[in-house]
Amino acid sequence: MLTLKEFKEARSVLSGVIRDTRLIYSDAFSRATGNHVYIKPENMQVTGAYKIRGAYYKISTLSQQEKERGLVTASAGNHAQGVAYAAQAAGVSATIVMPTTTPLVKVNNTKDYGAKAILHGETFDDAAALAAQLSQEEGLTYVHPFNDLAVATGQGTISYEIFQDLPDVDIILVPVGGGGLATGVSTLAKLLNPNVTVIGVEPAGAASMKASLDAGHVVTLEHIDTIADGVAVKTPGEQIFPYLQRNLDGVITIQDGELVDAFLDMMEKHKMIVENAGLLPIAALTHLDCTGKNVVPVLSGGNMDVITVASLVQHGLINRGRVFTFSVQLPDRPGELLRVASIVARENGNIIKLEHNQFVNINRQSGVELQVTLEAFGHGHKRAILEALCSEGYRARECDTSDFYT
Amino acid sequence: MLTLKEFKEARSVLSGVIRDTRLIYSDAFSRATGNHVYIKPENMQVTGAYKIRGAYYKISTLSQQEKERGLVTASAGNHAQGVAYAAQAAGVSATIVMPTTTPLVKVNNTKDYGAKAILHGETFDDAAALAAQLSQEEGLTYVHPFNDLAVATGQGTISYEIFQDLPDVDIILVPVGGGGLATGVSTLAKLLNPNVTVIGVEPAGAASMKASLDAGHVVTLEHIDTIADGVAVKTPGEQIFPYLQRNLDGVITIQDGELVDAFLDMMEKHKMIVENAGLLPIAALTHLDCTGKNVVPVLSGGNMDVITVASLVQHGLINRGRVFTFSVQLPDRPGELLRVASIVARENGNIIKLEHNQFVNINRQSGVELQVTLEAFGHGHKRAILEALCSEGYRARECDTSDFYT
Repeated sequence: MLTLKEFKEARSVLSGVIRDTRLIYSDAFSRATGNHVYIKPENMQVTGAYKIRGAYYKISTLSQQEKERGLVTASAGNHAQGVAYAAQAAGVSATIVMPTTTPLVKVNNTKDYGAKAILHGETFDDAAALAAQLSQEEGLTYVHPFNDLAVATGQGTISYEIFQDLPDVDIILVPVGGGGLATGVSTLAKLLNPNVTVIGVEPAGAASMKASLDAGHVVTLEHIDTIADGVAVKTPGEQIFPYLQRNLDGVITIQDGELVDAFLDMMEKHKMIVENAGLLPIAALTHLDCTGKNVVPVLSGGNMDVITVASLVQHGLINRGRVFTFSVQLPDRPGELLRVASIVARENGNIIKLEHNQFVNINRQSGVELQVTLEAFGHGHKRAILEALCSEGYRARECDTSDFYT
Repeated sequence: MLTLKEFKEARSVLSGVIRDTRLIYSDAFSRATGNHVYIKPENMQVTGAYKIRGAYYKISTLSQQEKERGLVTASAGNHAQGVAYAAQAAGVSATIVMPTTTPLVKVNNTKDYGAKAILHGETFDDAAALAAQLSQEEGLTYVHPFNDLAVATGQGTISYEIFQDLPDVDIILVPVGGGGLATGVSTLAKLLNPNVTVIGVEPAGAASMKASLDAGHVVTLEHIDTIADGVAVKTPGEQIFPYLQRNLDGVITIQDGELVDAFLDMMEKHKMIVENAGLLPIAALTHLDCTGKNVVPVLSGGNMDVITVASLVQHGLINRGRVFTFSVQLPDRPGELLRVASIVARENGNIIKLEHNQFVNINRQSGVELQVTLEAFGHGHKRAILEALCSEGYRARECDTSDFYT
């Protein structure tokens, strides 16, 4: 596995099954970073993520008997849909064990691709235990999401497409969870050109690969905490680890807050939805210490629940000063609201929420608290509004807006 | 203009300037409608909309003198960015008059493309008047957003790319505002294959093209009202109207509410942001009375303000039963909140907002109003939660949730 022969075979097996997601040149990110940035949009892949590559190639390596017994796996995410779709395309039956907490939408998507979905346990680990049991008792073929050389080989076919569109690529940025995608992409990239640099990108709150590479062996993190659920993995894959030690040139870690900005950038500049794990390489662009290079961030997927989208958009608006809240204490007498409203209107602030509380203070000179949430053009505009209030004698205090949105 | 010779010329002029936005097969829309749906993603075009095509081709038809004097236009939308970008690419100066109400983001985008932006007047008409004045007084070349045969020719090059990717296209769905895009696309499509059907799609609240085609001459609507600001046009273009009479096979009108669903569909199924005007052809897919046809909806653009995205997502969630609010009157005694909370928890409803009001009634048997906003899996789940409350003796009443979000 993971030799040029297998990668070639995987490419040919996948041809016609997957979409060739062509590189998109990013004018915006290139200008912002001084490099030439070409994004690899696997969020536009069939099933909304690269996972179908590994699953479908894995199936092609099974014996007729193994196929007839069918597949089993555990996942609440992209791997579930990837396996379900690949199994259907290959005419093989698949059973996906999902935690009972899995959103109905994802359960339905998996069923729509023809798989049998079993809801079991509270956590992924509970589900995985049942999947392993089914594999042993009923002889179903377990398709591991990352710790499997055939699966990693399938994921790696992405590198063929990168080199096809951009033969002189210098740097590839790839998200790292368990390490399957990073293994395939880095190993094939180095086979095609040993001088290319491949950097893994992990959330700072779940950097198990960085910890393992630093230690020189696979380690398990006790506690992980990140919004990038697609790569929230405590223990990287043991089987694939040697390949990563050899082929990964480094790991960049990203804070959750950086993903919020990256999400808005992708939406505004490229009109695309990218899920948190897929945003890691976008956030990593500003961490690179080089200019003039051809850089390819691999956007691994785009499967984000609409409620999460709503929440990211709202936090993004707050980060950018497009929405903010201030409070101001007013004398308890007629006309004060009118004065504040006129200042805000004159400064072009658009009021979206107002709370007027008369019981904050027994001193009637500052007896009313007014809390105003505004839409503004950005941080500069926000400051201008607050200063205008100040210059008219109001002591406006910016409040935490994050609780404005639920 | 608008002959095969000019379309060919426009295609060659635009080559290397615009992005070839290749058709994307839509498994989801194909399954939902029984047709074979291929989307034309002009939201991924340079500047986020097709407008660059017409502007750039128009510039190429100008004399050296006309180019040296520079361009002028009025727009607060995609045309502004299209002209600014095209002018910069062609090395021609451009002045864009924008209403003073234009969001700062759009003003900055236009300036980033090297154009001079003048903020003038409250409405588009005021801005257009100044642009016309500048054109007359300073001899600047006016680039009309739609009522111009060269501009329409440039927009029409989209049809070449559709036929290149899908030679046996049956139906093209194209958004209609002033009619420039529809003129170019329908005229070239009929030249390439007279049997192809081209249908315009307008918002029901601004259907000036439908009214004009019905009347047999250009008419002006007194009042328009639609969220699809990119096609909110009172008077279609006089010069291009004869082409539309000849080449457009019909007009479908769409309600604003249909655009909210189309927005969520594009986000969930294709991980893309499409602006309201661009969503019209997606919404029109379910209006088609045919199956088995190759249908191409042209997504004209993706330039949507993040605040509008937030609002559409939230309305979409409400439409789909993913967020809803109910109110219930409780006896004013300890333990009642606990009972309601247990029922909601048992039914897997996730509370995102709670209001508890003690002063609604002097009768202590129903003296407290509790208003609960929940996250649910959809309409079925919503009904199950309400029925569970009912069966425990509570009279839960669903409330209008639309005011929950600002």
